[in-house]
Amino acid sequence: MKGNVIVGQSGGPTAAINSSLAGVYRTAKDRGAKKVYGMLHGIQGLMEEKYIDLSEHITNDLDAELLKRTPAAYLGSCRYKLPEIHENREVYEKIFEILDKLDIEAFIYIGGNDSMDTIKKLSDYAIVMGYPTRFIGCPKTIDNDLALTDHTPGYGSAAKYIGTSVKEIIRDSFCLEYSKGLVTIVEIMGRNAGWLTGAAALAKGEDCAGPDLIYLPELTFDLDNFMERIRELLAKKPSVVVAVSEGIHLEDGRYVCELGANVDFVDAFGHKQLTGTAAYLAHYVANEIGCKTRAIELSTLQRSASHCASRVDILEASQVGGAAVKAADEGDNGKMVVLKRISDDPYQCSTEVKDVHKIANDEKLVPREWVNAEGTYVTDEFIAYIKPLIQGDVSPVMVDGIPRHLYKPSH
Amino acid sequence: MKGNVIVGQSGGPTAAINSSLAGVYRTAKDRGAKKVYGMLHGIQGLMEEKYIDLSEHITNDLDAELLKRTPAAYLGSCRYKLPEIHENREVYEKIFEILDKLDIEAFIYIGGNDSMDTIKKLSDYAIVMGYPTRFIGCPKTIDNDLALTDHTPGYGSAAKYIGTSVKEIIRDSFCLEYSKGLVTIVEIMGRNAGWLTGAAALAKGEDCAGPDLIYLPELTFDLDNFMERIRELLAKKPSVVVAVSEGIHLEDGRYVCELGANVDFVDAFGHKQLTGTAAYLAHYVANEIGCKTRAIELSTLQRSASHCASRVDILEASQVGGAAVKAADEGDNGKMVVLKRISDDPYQCSTEVKDVHKIANDEKLVPREWVNAEGTYVTDEFIAYIKPLIQGDVSPVMVDGIPRHLYKPSH
Repeated sequence: MKGNVIVGQSGGPTAAINSSLAGVYRTAKDRGAKKVYGMLHGIQGLMEEKYIDLSEHITNDLDAELLKRTPAAYLGSCRYKLPEIHENREVYEKIFEILDKLDIEAFIYIGGNDSMDTIKKLSDYAIVMGYPTRFIGCPKTIDNDLALTDHTPGYGSAAKYIGTSVKEIIRDSFCLEYSKGLVTIVEIMGRNAGWLTGAAALAKGEDCAGPDLIYLPELTFDLDNFMERIRELLAKKPSVVVAVSEGIHLEDGRYVCELGANVDFVDAFGHKQLTGTAAYLAHYVANEIGCKTRAIELSTLQRSASHCASRVDILEASQVGGAAVKAADEGDNGKMVVLKRISDDPYQCSTEVKDVHKIANDEKLVPREWVNAEGTYVTDEFIAYIKPLIQGDVSPVMVDGIPRHLYKPSH
Repeated sequence: MKGNVIVGQSGGPTAAINSSLAGVYRTAKDRGAKKVYGMLHGIQGLMEEKYIDLSEHITNDLDAELLKRTPAAYLGSCRYKLPEIHENREVYEKIFEILDKLDIEAFIYIGGNDSMDTIKKLSDYAIVMGYPTRFIGCPKTIDNDLALTDHTPGYGSAAKYIGTSVKEIIRDSFCLEYSKGLVTIVEIMGRNAGWLTGAAALAKGEDCAGPDLIYLPELTFDLDNFMERIRELLAKKPSVVVAVSEGIHLEDGRYVCELGANVDFVDAFGHKQLTGTAAYLAHYVANEIGCKTRAIELSTLQRSASHCASRVDILEASQVGGAAVKAADEGDNGKMVVLKRISDDPYQCSTEVKDVHKIANDEKLVPREWVNAEGTYVTDEFIAYIKPLIQGDVSPVMVDGIPRHLYKPSH
């Protein structure tokens, strides 16, 4: 590389996003980039000229290893959607003025759907205006809902945490017996896509029956049918554990969490902020049956639990970061790196690049045939797809009993 | 030993209670016990003659190692308080009839305050009636609120999980910036004792500022003062993280969670079931300041996260189980094994036995001098006390990417 590289992180943080950052940094340095800049809080920070020189932060190999083990976005993230080019050219002029000043050859953006929209618009603008900077997207989202890629870095670690935690919750739920039984509802992230919720099935194995029911947001949720199944299960066993997506909704489109008294918030992308699905269902079951119920939200923990990361995921995240730099260096523009599964047994996965126009703003959902006919559990195909992604561990660097992260002074 | 041993688990499950069970089993076998029985669901199950022969379940050393890594109560637990002897002698006659039939020499009960009450009553009855069975309590509670023992097995692992998770939450909370800031409230278990909530301070280190405020249930919570501090913090930093006990309450005695619309439940011991403290405070702050807020309950996860257990804790839990059998074998009765800290640097801890009459139904709270003058953080003494208890890891036995537990067919 002849110029410099700038990298940003965008959207919801994950346990693997910093491993992609480490991969970008390492490959950029290996390929001769003079400087590797990091945007602080993504494109939003960049527009305010907030960025750092990463080599001042990653000073040796141990720092790079710590970075891979540090959850959340080291550089800070943002949820900022660029205006359409014809609506506000000034924003683009400003961004390219900064990129020009920093002599940026490659602009790498690590993020999900909304972030790929940023890559699309910036690369379109660069091509139209004749700017030389190349824009490459690096997939990241625990939601695993990006099109064209077999899966997204960040998903495997979240899935491993969900499987592990749901198994521990199931173990716990059988300890105390209640006269009318115990129903535990575990609420898992994923507004429209059930990839994370389906990962609850990973709890199932020789030593654990797994959750009893799994409800994905792709299918309509029927409260009466749900109650019928709960009653049937309670007739057979003292403890019932149900995994539900935060985004499950009724046939009329209302989210289950809206049925309670929760306030609705809408974020910058117009997405409804969901909360309280498990709490609502737990109260509902308790009222209807009179049994003991428990609502557990895996919350932020499922996306930030680096201490329980998947080795496959952390390695792939780093590889994808490196592949993004390589693609830019080799002349690609307006592309996103994707993971392509070559083989399931043994699991093998390589990287490719795909046109970001085919990815941005598109959402990959769990296929209907990967959910059973009743809509109450994922199939063996789903589990076979996900199993390779949670393999192996990344031992945290423990200092005084607690995992060490790479420190950034402002945090 | 000439007779048999029976062991039960009682009260809330933990990540270490099965390590105590493994310690009981191993020492009982080593000392020549012919049979080691396990009560299913504690004394409540025993009264219905529900028990198993543990040697049919722990068939080799690997089983014993898996048992130490299995969260929750392997035998099942109960929350059953024995009646006073003079109120209902039949219950006692029934229990002793079963013990006599099984030729029980030592009765080991692994549990917390309420469970030690069971040991007290049964040993009193045995002495008065001239029964030879000896009754020994084995401390267990994540709450760390048992008197006379330096700490309780189960606490260290929960503390390690809390410190690790709070650190990950703090990292996550700095990623996205909100115009009016973000306030995250983390709700931690501990109805009356703040030992677990104080463990949030373990997140603090060279690489992390730790939570901004920590509120224990031992001190009165002042909502106005809390709001003032939140405003001060938000003026200085974009993200504020607060750890609160589920049991914080106002000066008039009302729990913070009662201020919302939550329904109150009362358990078998007359304890109020608490829920929703973080949710209430998060809504309150959002309404008052208009900033983004987030409520996170560590919930059941904090007591069942074997995948993040402390090695010191798991080893001590096993040692305490062994010491209970040894005490019974050597003629002790109506005692509880306690941990006695011999030295802080290096950390050394041994076991002793203490009269259970001095322990049962008593609650050890965090001393006032281990909380700062303002009541908003634990002191360095608190952290020095807790640090040795979270050291070292117990690698889970990973099978196909998920921790393996010791399987019990009925679960």
